[in-house]
Amino acid sequence: MSNQDRVRSILDKARAQGRASLATLDALDVAAAYNIPCPPTSLARNVDEVSDLADQVGYPLVLKIESADILHKTDAGGVITGINSAAQAVEAYGQLLRNVGAHHSNAVIDGVVLQKMCSGGQEVIIGAVTDPVFGKLVAFGAGGILVELLGDVTFRLAPTDQAQAQAMISEIKAAKILDGVRGQPAADKAALAEVICSVSQLVSDFPEISELDLNPVFASSDGATAVDLRILLDFSLTRAASQRDETAIRAAMERIMRPAGVAVIGASAEDGKIGNSVMRNLIDGGYKGGLYPIHPKATEILGHKCYASVADVPAEIDIAIFCIPARFVAGVLAEVGAKGIAGAILIPSGFAEIGEHELQAEVVAAARANNVRLMGPNIYGFYYTHHNLCATFCTPYDQKGAVALSSQSGGVGMAIIGFSRSAKMGVSAIVGLGNKSDIDEDDLLIFFEQDPNTSVIAMHVEDLKDGRGFAEVAQRVTKTKPVVVLKAGRTASGAKAASSHTGALAGDDRVYEAILKQSGVIRARSLNEMLEFARGLTILPTPKGENVLILTGAGGSGVLLADACIDNDLTLMTMPPDLDEAYKAFIPPFGASGNPVDITGGEPPSTYAATIDLSLNDERVHALILGYWHTIITPPMVFAELLGNAVEKARSKGIDKPIVASLVGDVEIEEACRYLLDRNILAYPYEAEKPVAVLGAKYKWARGAGLV
Amino acid sequence: MSNQDRVRSILDKARAQGRASLATLDALDVAAAYNIPCPPTSLARNVDEVSDLADQVGYPLVLKIESADILHKTDAGGVITGINSAAQAVEAYGQLLRNVGAHHSNAVIDGVVLQKMCSGGQEVIIGAVTDPVFGKLVAFGAGGILVELLGDVTFRLAPTDQAQAQAMISEIKAAKILDGVRGQPAADKAALAEVICSVSQLVSDFPEISELDLNPVFASSDGATAVDLRILLDFSLTRAASQRDETAIRAAMERIMRPAGVAVIGASAEDGKIGNSVMRNLIDGGYKGGLYPIHPKATEILGHKCYASVADVPAEIDIAIFCIPARFVAGVLAEVGAKGIAGAILIPSGFAEIGEHELQAEVVAAARANNVRLMGPNIYGFYYTHHNLCATFCTPYDQKGAVALSSQSGGVGMAIIGFSRSAKMGVSAIVGLGNKSDIDEDDLLIFFEQDPNTSVIAMHVEDLKDGRGFAEVAQRVTKTKPVVVLKAGRTASGAKAASSHTGALAGDDRVYEAILKQSGVIRARSLNEMLEFARGLTILPTPKGENVLILTGAGGSGVLLADACIDNDLTLMTMPPDLDEAYKAFIPPFGASGNPVDITGGEPPSTYAATIDLSLNDERVHALILGYWHTIITPPMVFAELLGNAVEKARSKGIDKPIVASLVGDVEIEEACRYLLDRNILAYPYEAEKPVAVLGAKYKWARGAGLV
Repeated sequence: MSNQDRVRSILDKARAQGRASLATLDALDVAAAYNIPCPPTSLARNVDEVSDLADQVGYPLVLKIESADILHKTDAGGVITGINSAAQAVEAYGQLLRNVGAHHSNAVIDGVVLQKMCSGGQEVIIGAVTDPVFGKLVAFGAGGILVELLGDVTFRLAPTDQAQAQAMISEIKAAKILDGVRGQPAADKAALAEVICSVSQLVSDFPEISELDLNPVFASSDGATAVDLRILLDFSLTRAASQRDETAIRAAMERIMRPAGVAVIGASAEDGKIGNSVMRNLIDGGYKGGLYPIHPKATEILGHKCYASVADVPAEIDIAIFCIPARFVAGVLAEVGAKGIAGAILIPSGFAEIGEHELQAEVVAAARANNVRLMGPNIYGFYYTHHNLCATFCTPYDQKGAVALSSQSGGVGMAIIGFSRSAKMGVSAIVGLGNKSDIDEDDLLIFFEQDPNTSVIAMHVEDLKDGRGFAEVAQRVTKTKPVVVLKAGRTASGAKAASSHTGALAGDDRVYEAILKQSGVIRARSLNEMLEFARGLTILPTPKGENVLILTGAGGSGVLLADACIDNDLTLMTMPPDLDEAYKAFIPPFGASGNPVDITGGEPPSTYAATIDLSLNDERVHALILGYWHTIITPPMVFAELLGNAVEKARSKGIDKPIVASLVGDVEIEEACRYLLDRNILAYPYEAEKPVAVLGAKYKWARGAGLV
Repeated sequence: MSNQDRVRSILDKARAQGRASLATLDALDVAAAYNIPCPPTSLARNVDEVSDLADQVGYPLVLKIESADILHKTDAGGVITGINSAAQAVEAYGQLLRNVGAHHSNAVIDGVVLQKMCSGGQEVIIGAVTDPVFGKLVAFGAGGILVELLGDVTFRLAPTDQAQAQAMISEIKAAKILDGVRGQPAADKAALAEVICSVSQLVSDFPEISELDLNPVFASSDGATAVDLRILLDFSLTRAASQRDETAIRAAMERIMRPAGVAVIGASAEDGKIGNSVMRNLIDGGYKGGLYPIHPKATEILGHKCYASVADVPAEIDIAIFCIPARFVAGVLAEVGAKGIAGAILIPSGFAEIGEHELQAEVVAAARANNVRLMGPNIYGFYYTHHNLCATFCTPYDQKGAVALSSQSGGVGMAIIGFSRSAKMGVSAIVGLGNKSDIDEDDLLIFFEQDPNTSVIAMHVEDLKDGRGFAEVAQRVTKTKPVVVLKAGRTASGAKAASSHTGALAGDDRVYEAILKQSGVIRARSLNEMLEFARGLTILPTPKGENVLILTGAGGSGVLLADACIDNDLTLMTMPPDLDEAYKAFIPPFGASGNPVDITGGEPPSTYAATIDLSLNDERVHALILGYWHTIITPPMVFAELLGNAVEKARSKGIDKPIVASLVGDVEIEEACRYLLDRNILAYPYEAEKPVAVLGAKYKWARGAGLV
């Protein structure tokens, strides 16, 4: 019988018995089938068997009550440790029965488990849960009571591989404990990683294993042993079949984002109506394709011929923008489908967001039946600037660029539009996802991945409908384009009842944190950070290495910038002696050599220019953080111009390394920052930490993509 | 003999013996004198004594080698635990001597210590250190190997009291462990706090105790026992006498900040010279007092009569602004002192910051000898706006207000000036502290504390010369005025940059963190946060309670704002049913009731106005967070005006609760935010988290001051 068959037969037996968790020996058999090492264990059904088996299992041993009715053995007095002889074992057996009898007088006792005690090594936890968003997850955490309190645990999608398992082992806060502390030898991390992989494979192979706990696992220099094992079952769980047909998604999204023909259902000539705003925005935005207002009676709206139905339009249509009340939407989808329209943009609200789940389900069913993709409902619409498409009732937006943004909320969408305009952020697309009845972040990622106009993707997310799908796609997309996510609703709302330790540790946000990280996503901590990252990541080129140099006119800024480097995992380059000498030739003797390079505050433009040139031209410097200090000797615009010239010269020679600048000074620095931004040099007034955070985001992405 | 005398005699003996640490029994005697509970312990000098004493001490016991030459007993094999009989003790004794002999063949062995083993309870660490910045500190941390790795420890100035000791116990990350976990009873926190207080008193009474370790302490339900105790000695340490004469400081600072007469030493008629810029700024800034340029030859500069020396000026002078090269400063201080001038403002650089420590020491000595306070050297000068005083070579600054700012670095000072001007932040003073050869943050706190023009103090700090003095003053000042500190040099490499900048060593950040917190200081995490907190704290009134309400037009903003509330320790009010009903009367049925109150996006101005009125007028709502979403129905300026009117009406009725607003939308929201700020309503465009962080800072201060 194969290992999988062994597990299958054990689970079938448990299902037949109506069990919600596996009996200890069955769980151990399952573990054995997947090479999860556990100590020698036997089940004794009566006092004679206890006496017989004790010697066989070996000392010291632990006795644990075996009963499907008792989940928390320790609390019930159902565990006695440190037994060193058969006589002690017999005595402990009696005690165990008395303890448990006092706690659970009605519990059916299957016997007691005798297990050889392990010692030595560090306690860790390995487990698995079934997450409503991400499906099967494998967990790794430090063990012991303190870390349980501190919640030091991380997650990966199951199944996972050795490399990811090793990454899990390294990324918990108490990771160092496994390197050997207080004279202990280092733990065998490869063995631990094996166990993580085995657990992740087991729960992937058997979806009915809802939760699994190896707690604790003793990790020592010669291996890993799970001294307690719990397997919880939920036979209602089944394997989620991946239904993603990326070719079809891409084809549909291509038509939706770059439509040749657009119908506006509920177009209106009346000012103030949504159907009017959408028409105006399409026209004012400069959309060049076919534009077909649909209206039961009107013959012409804003200079465009009207049709009573999309069926009447004598041309191909790619999207239909719905500007009609919620209750009419489903009815129109049939003719939209019949016309071969790829996407319905559902602006109207009045669906799930106000509790009208049935109405939304009806619309989704109609769309599926008619092979129409849905965007929304309850959205502001979307923009695709490179196609001059403003399919929205908001305002036209035309600053073309490389950032694609999406938001689940309309308010955040408006913030995106306002910030983009204000900060002159070039945008390829802004998409409202609203209720996400169909099109969601996965679909957008699949489209933007191959969209030549998009180089950075930023998303405001309140929840993921299919977290696993998102993570799988994001893992691939982030290898070529940075994906920034602002995950709103971070704070755990309502503690869910969890019957395993791993389950209890799997707070919503902790899982999102780990899986977004695994997916290579850069997580923004605030709305502003999402927007700044989006803008900055398109401007900054990819660094060729980890050597970051700070060059500053203000020592005080240098300190703040260095602080920020550490906070953002940036590596201050160890200054090569020859380069140090080269800087010294330009800066006063009391300027600080090393890194930060402090050229001091009283220097003329030539000092800035010379040291910036050095930094740009030396190949060992991979990224440059500039600290400018407003002085009369080198005023803000003089600095901006000399920096602009130096960068232009370098770029013309093919040198393009990431540069961020922090400008401190009087209000004139704002103009200098604008001047630099217009030249694609990222500069911030009155800020030290923000430019470094943006550079940090670029590095985080580049590392994840294997580019640095 | 009193307890103090007992300790004194033990320390005297150790000093006579030239010891750097106390012998175990002496340390135990010291502990006993200060009621620090330790287990029964005896010293055996030979095998017979071991045999005799074992029964007396009681089992199980531990044997530890006693030798002044062996600091790390465990590493030397000098500790054997779990001894249960005299025979085992004798055997262990032999083993101990062999182990230690192998490690330290030359160690002088004083015997072995027999100690009753403790068990049960949680391991914690209590200790004390002598910090170069803050002096004697008491430490409390979670014990065990994991938390040692995680560095879960906090500090207070020693001596400390029960309340602070209890706060220490509550603020470590693993605090919950003492509340009883896994069925264990809660630890006796009062007993733990007693030990913390005793340790803090002991090291305060005896400065020569340089470090003290109780590691571990077993904290159980019936008390706390220190099972290992180490006392390190440094007889070069003496009690630092507090030399602060606050009356004298206040008097001098009053004259310096609001001078009736100002001399400019090195005044110049030549454009571009610092002595010229300072003269111009004083004049252009509108300074109304006596202004006396000092110049060896000139008769008049910029319309003001010149003098060759301050001695020649026929009027009283309060400050002398030095605009002469470093090497001439000390020489002039004698006549400055003779003239009775209170303060010398030392703009010149060329002192400690470039390694010229002797030159700086000379200047300090000259100032002390002549009873002159020094500001700087190496500074941009300072502003005191309410006196129209711009004693600086930068630009005049005249936006009068209630924020006093200081910076150690000139660059950061310029950022303060620029941000203040750009953000229209009203300022009372901006002070450059530079090398802090004399006047430092303590002096400024003492002045600003009683300055009627200042209500918030914000400081950029790279190092504190006298951290203890700062903490003591700040503890008092923060009870009436918020103090915001941006501590630069937080990280290892940040600290390195700090030392190359000012020649000062930055302290350990964990210590700064704890002591600033103890002092009631609000710590800013970035330059921008310091500036925003400074501005916001003057605008926001003090809340009357913890009930925070979010009222939003955008559900998406509501989620971000709620996230930010949790991140900033704000309490979302539990909505009273009657108030919930009152809101419901104004908002659509699908709007979210509860908190956040989501009025939904499509609402007219009247809905905003009615719900804002409700929130302002209900006494149970103590602070209000508004989320505005730009729509055509309620455009930004309409919202701004209705909010402005509502707040004005409420203020006229004496209702003034903190309000912050997050505006999301197109660029018009920037104008709306400016409009609101002009009316003292804190509003931010494209930001959700920042307004909440500022409100959080206000709450943090108010809680620390006991006002909420």
